[in-house]
Amino acid sequence: MNILGHGGHSSAWRIHEVEPTAIWDINYYQNIARICERGAIDAIFLADGPALQGDVGEQPAGRLEPTVLITAMAAATERIGMIATCSTTYNDPFNIARRFASIDHLSGGRTAWNAVTTANDAAAANFGLEGAPVHADRYGRAQEFLEVVIKLWDSWEEDAVIGDAENGVFADRSRVHAINHVGERFSVKGPLNVGRSPQGRPVIVQAGSSEDGKQLAARFADAVFTTQTSLQDGQEFYNEIRSRAAGQGRDPDTIRLMPGLSTVIGGTEAEALERQRELDELRGWDRPLKMLAAQIGIPVEALELDKRLPEHLLVDVNQFERGSHGFFEAQVNLALKERLTVRQLIGRVRSGHRLAVGAPEQIADTLEHWFRERAADGFNIMPDYFPSGAEDFVDQVVPELRRRGVFRTEYTGTTLREHLGLPLPRGQYATAGSEAAAA
Amino acid sequence: MNILGHGGHSSAWRIHEVEPTAIWDINYYQNIARICERGAIDAIFLADGPALQGDVGEQPAGRLEPTVLITAMAAATERIGMIATCSTTYNDPFNIARRFASIDHLSGGRTAWNAVTTANDAAAANFGLEGAPVHADRYGRAQEFLEVVIKLWDSWEEDAVIGDAENGVFADRSRVHAINHVGERFSVKGPLNVGRSPQGRPVIVQAGSSEDGKQLAARFADAVFTTQTSLQDGQEFYNEIRSRAAGQGRDPDTIRLMPGLSTVIGGTEAEALERQRELDELRGWDRPLKMLAAQIGIPVEALELDKRLPEHLLVDVNQFERGSHGFFEAQVNLALKERLTVRQLIGRVRSGHRLAVGAPEQIADTLEHWFRERAADGFNIMPDYFPSGAEDFVDQVVPELRRRGVFRTEYTGTTLREHLGLPLPRGQYATAGSEAAAA
Repeated sequence: MNILGHGGHSSAWRIHEVEPTAIWDINYYQNIARICERGAIDAIFLADGPALQGDVGEQPAGRLEPTVLITAMAAATERIGMIATCSTTYNDPFNIARRFASIDHLSGGRTAWNAVTTANDAAAANFGLEGAPVHADRYGRAQEFLEVVIKLWDSWEEDAVIGDAENGVFADRSRVHAINHVGERFSVKGPLNVGRSPQGRPVIVQAGSSEDGKQLAARFADAVFTTQTSLQDGQEFYNEIRSRAAGQGRDPDTIRLMPGLSTVIGGTEAEALERQRELDELRGWDRPLKMLAAQIGIPVEALELDKRLPEHLLVDVNQFERGSHGFFEAQVNLALKERLTVRQLIGRVRSGHRLAVGAPEQIADTLEHWFRERAADGFNIMPDYFPSGAEDFVDQVVPELRRRGVFRTEYTGTTLREHLGLPLPRGQYATAGSEAAAA
Repeated sequence: MNILGHGGHSSAWRIHEVEPTAIWDINYYQNIARICERGAIDAIFLADGPALQGDVGEQPAGRLEPTVLITAMAAATERIGMIATCSTTYNDPFNIARRFASIDHLSGGRTAWNAVTTANDAAAANFGLEGAPVHADRYGRAQEFLEVVIKLWDSWEEDAVIGDAENGVFADRSRVHAINHVGERFSVKGPLNVGRSPQGRPVIVQAGSSEDGKQLAARFADAVFTTQTSLQDGQEFYNEIRSRAAGQGRDPDTIRLMPGLSTVIGGTEAEALERQRELDELRGWDRPLKMLAAQIGIPVEALELDKRLPEHLLVDVNQFERGSHGFFEAQVNLALKERLTVRQLIGRVRSGHRLAVGAPEQIADTLEHWFRERAADGFNIMPDYFPSGAEDFVDQVVPELRRRGVFRTEYTGTTLREHLGLPLPRGQYATAGSEAAAA
């Protein structure tokens, strides 16, 4: 469940279900986390970027830092996972490895890191750069960053701690490893100053849909957030990532594909449409036009609501440098394939993700369809506004999914890896250690 | 109250009051935080450095990352403050400003940042450096780092948020400021992507005792952790920092001096001495000898337990590059002034701080004495081991201090600034804004 501000719809805050400043209120988040836990949802997810985005005059802007926010939500829950986004471009690997290992300890193994490269220039300007590094540089750094983080997580072997207080032996020194990483961008000696965490490695989430992003996901990700807007695109992406993972020598069943789904849920379809109409009316068309323009790399002046996308202005996605390839393709593919006007396109997508408006059974229909047709292992659900958007999902959609036998009735494990059906990873130094011991 | 591993004594874990792996257990920390809150203690304090230090074979090593750990402790408490250490050498100002502002929101205004420059080489090796930058470089960076962080905290004026959901006006744009900082080491545009936090600015703690450190404290610190081992040194330092603060145009009553005190508390003095003897016996002499040698910059081979410090090997403190000037002076001054042998010196100091061993009344005596004689506004208390070292302080020493009229009977405020008697700071842009409005 994706918590972003007051909800996924940009007018969410104007419904005034909670105070405008709820986005800075621990009770707001802990309440949503408890609602989701009641529904045995896998995890809470926080997207992020280190810059103020959007017009603070028009809508709540700003986000609490995700790693501390998930820690506060974890402290108020027992089972639900917690996924926080941190940028590989604007952090150091030692700090990130340590912070997530720490949260994994503090949450009893419920943490995930969504590793992003942060394309926007506003973030760059907060870190001494004129603009965001280009795509290839960001992904080059991300790849080495992830290598280092995983080495650090592995630097304490599973059985390194002996804990013999009587004789004063805490750990087996030979099982706590300096990683001595020396690469193109990072030199990190290690070991980590946090012992191996309950999940062995916190879950790694990745969301890139570019060529580089897909390679990164195939190599490192336990779960992938995706953006496809049609079942066929979803299936193709699902298969592609699994094939690429297999190409990296991985079991494709150890990688979970999770398309985004923006939701507007009503007791009936009519109620849902009315809920949606009210939100859209408060929003107007300027904001979604600007967002669409930015996400597909076309000047906003070139978009007309009741005309189709100006195809001659669209660049090839691989030439699109400063934004998400996933959001680009999600919208361009849908508009071209179904010959949508800009207005129609905006009505089919929210925040770059596929939009479902309907009664609980209708929401369940599309979730079940994508799941059974192997376009998804799970979903990144983005309710329109909180808390009712989460309550309706948990109390109306989840029971329907259970009736259909496609969703758990309760948590069967205690860690996020267990919720996702992922194995406990074995450390890379552990094998070497055992071999050395056997030699 | 300073929580470091199992406690301030390096043999703390061998007493086995809690499991060896308690240092990675949220329940261990939340329990101590609740004990301290029961005693209306100002704050929990976590020291830190981003490297594994100490021999993991011999004792528990490693520390959970402090900003997430204080967030987890804050979630389990209502009033007590939370002080986390983060390095200015191995972080970026935007990330630190944002993380502490976020925790300040999540804790209801109970956060402080202990800004350190991190002298040790092990940390440097985890961030691509051969060794720690020299003292002047570290402090030059720290000064600009603090400037930037405070600008970011001030970037949202107190009254920036209007929160008019009905009319769709969230904030007054003219009261959310880009900081446009361009300095020698940092270029940061801002504004922060977190609104002004409950304390306006999280409390800033500083602990440097070098010339640069004292200037930094005088300019920026709300509270200063100090290391003096004699009342006279304590008084001199107290007066010096207050004078320096006044020299910066500050009211010296808005800066709190907090010397460290390592404690071993018994029901009687004899019980305390027995408790101390047991700990020291488990510890032996190798470890404190090595620590002393490192802290005063003398080869360990040059120290003999039953001889005095080899004065000819001592450098002038201002030439001491790779360690704390505070710990250097705390030990060298005490040893020379009182003509102590190395063994005697080790018995008077723990972890570089003054050691008090005794019955609750005796601990209260020295706290009251330093407080009334104006060598301290408060103390950084380091119990020998947890949880009993904290329980004994809260249940035995605190009531004695209350009988003497030198400690509160309950919290009178809700924020750490209120506990410390510090004013709510006014943002630097707020004044400019008001002037502009008045012009």
